[in-house]
Amino acid sequence: MSNPHTLCPKFEAAFELLGKRWTGLIIQVLLSGPKRFKDLSDIIPGMSDRMLSERFKELEAAGIIIRHVYPETPVRIEYELTEKGKGLEFAMKEVQEWAEKWAGHDECPPQEA
Amino acid sequence: MSNPHTLCPKFEAAFELLGKRWTGLIIQVLLSGPKRFKDLSDIIPGMSDRMLSERFKELEAAGIIIRHVYPETPVRIEYELTEKGKGLEFAMKEVQEWAEKWAGHDECPPQEA
Repeated sequence: MSNPHTLCPKFEAAFELLGKRWTGLIIQVLLSGPKRFKDLSDIIPGMSDRMLSERFKELEAAGIIIRHVYPETPVRIEYELTEKGKGLEFAMKEVQEWAEKWAGHDECPPQEA
Repeated sequence: MSNPHTLCPKFEAAFELLGKRWTGLIIQVLLSGPKRFKDLSDIIPGMSDRMLSERFKELEAAGIIIRHVYPETPVRIEYELTEKGKGLEFAMKEVQEWAEKWAGHDECPPQEA
């Protein structure tokens, strides 16, 4: 396509994925390193375990996170961003900066606990 | 909130808005300057006029575009990005670069006409 305005449909797919509730926050937390399920649910108190489990499955299916199972006793399971997932750092930062700059503070309440 | 992982809900709202079909493309086209309705619908042939009209309303409500009415004969109406809308340039670029890098080319068909 020679039209300079043509955007890959993957562009919208990316925004769709990242626009889901909690997804941005999960990726943000995992940018600081691999985490266990409980780490995530402790850090994000407003999110139910069922929701976290669902998001993990979606992000795994999208190739954004990988699940590591360490055969210890008890078994240890960690979730880590893939290279594709880590590649989102700058995109997330730019959207966040835009949102912070343009959303009034009064529109930005603390997250529910 | 002192938790460094707390993200403003506006962050997810931004992704939600930008994740809607055609929205990214409309903003992308308007980044090159104000356009008339017909300019947009010519540049984005796969999008219906009804859809464009709906997206314009959403983007206007979100303060991302502004509608100028010039009292000429016939009346001329143009849509332009606000400063808030123009501020999206880098965020869109980063998400697009990520999507282009990580989506296989075979997953990225030309847009329907």
